[in-house]
Amino acid sequence: MKNVKLIIEYDGTNYCGWQKQKNNITVQGTLEKALNKATNERVDAIGSSRTDAGVHARGMVCNFITSSSIPAERFREAINRHLPSDVAIIKSEEVEESFHARYSSKGKSYSYTIINRYENVVIGKNFCCQVRENLDIDSMKMACKYFVGQHDFQAFQSKGSSVKTTIRTIDELCIEKEKDTIKIHVTADGFLYNMVRIIVGTLIQVGKGKIKADYVGNIIESLDRMKAGPCIKANGLVLEKVYY
Amino acid sequence: MKNVKLIIEYDGTNYCGWQKQKNNITVQGTLEKALNKATNERVDAIGSSRTDAGVHARGMVCNFITSSSIPAERFREAINRHLPSDVAIIKSEEVEESFHARYSSKGKSYSYTIINRYENVVIGKNFCCQVRENLDIDSMKMACKYFVGQHDFQAFQSKGSSVKTTIRTIDELCIEKEKDTIKIHVTADGFLYNMVRIIVGTLIQVGKGKIKADYVGNIIESLDRMKAGPCIKANGLVLEKVYY
Repeated sequence: MKNVKLIIEYDGTNYCGWQKQKNNITVQGTLEKALNKATNERVDAIGSSRTDAGVHARGMVCNFITSSSIPAERFREAINRHLPSDVAIIKSEEVEESFHARYSSKGKSYSYTIINRYENVVIGKNFCCQVRENLDIDSMKMACKYFVGQHDFQAFQSKGSSVKTTIRTIDELCIEKEKDTIKIHVTADGFLYNMVRIIVGTLIQVGKGKIKADYVGNIIESLDRMKAGPCIKANGLVLEKVYY
Repeated sequence: MKNVKLIIEYDGTNYCGWQKQKNNITVQGTLEKALNKATNERVDAIGSSRTDAGVHARGMVCNFITSSSIPAERFREAINRHLPSDVAIIKSEEVEESFHARYSSKGKSYSYTIINRYENVVIGKNFCCQVRENLDIDSMKMACKYFVGQHDFQAFQSKGSSVKTTIRTIDELCIEKEKDTIKIHVTADGFLYNMVRIIVGTLIQVGKGKIKADYVGNIIESLDRMKAGPCIKANGLVLEKVYY
């Protein structure tokens, strides 16, 4: 028996998120089918994160236990053979028995892409959120500072998940703009349910002038979901990397 | 009667190119259907370029003559209402009677995206050509110099088009690399059939070490299509801008 770790890239557009569902096509379900074909076993894939419908990944991590004789490094090709073109194994390697894609994770990085222009977006539309009103990028950058560090992020969590604590540490939250593309990068030791999308939703409100940059500290302190911005749409979000 | 100029963005993935065809879905055909609905007329859309199947555009230009009472600037919204999500009008404006999207053009810019890595590409796969072998970007940059300027580009033309002259002037050909993404930008007064894709195909051969950078001048001089690299696949190509 060996424990195999996979790094997976996927275009989440046509999936109902990561987690297996009975009647919907999900990334985990699709991957497990491919795993079963590659190993001739019934294999459970343990994912690092349960990305929502429409969210993408460049660096989703998962692990599975197998008694297959395929060398761990060969799993990449062996599984890719059975995957559709919107999911690909980037790397496969053997890891310690104790490695668990979810519980061993020490941190994660996400990116979020906003296209800020009035004209309809066509190229890349499944990988961004379009904002037609002009965003003040300097205010958004100022607002970022309040998020960095250890905070109780209860105000930035959607209902529907139970976690022991809503305290998380954001190591980095930065924004870069090139032409009409605004890219937000965020790294933390972990994220609450919809946390990145609510942070980005709040930053957009700041960019529109509806929330003042220096009020963001108060929103965090309030622990009040109603004070933060909306949960912005899923398809601008990419799980970039999981740290162990 | 007025002459209306449109700037159009499209994702060419699901189209058999720009030019109208009887039994296939094309961008021109799709646009004309939308134009007919918006104007209640039978309108011919004159395109600046006949992009091939799978080629995209951020700045395709077209013009049409109409007697519709819709103000020219309003055509953007009026036409967008009838277009699928992979085609969008970015701008509409009235132009002089003599303006012709194709014959008035003074130059064009294209971009071409290569993803240079071994691992399968998922995100953005319809907008790039993947090259798995490591490309030597410095040699490719050196090779670019030979293309710039006025040359007879007969060696960089696919069969199937009749043009008066195969002499063109390339104003700029540059390459930038960020992580595994190589982006090539090219601007010329005009392009022969498949010219950008054959230039990129040749640059890739240079990057692989199969053609020496300083041999590129000889290929151009030879006027021999057989000496140049292959016509690389369409979907890395984007028509960025047309100059008038």
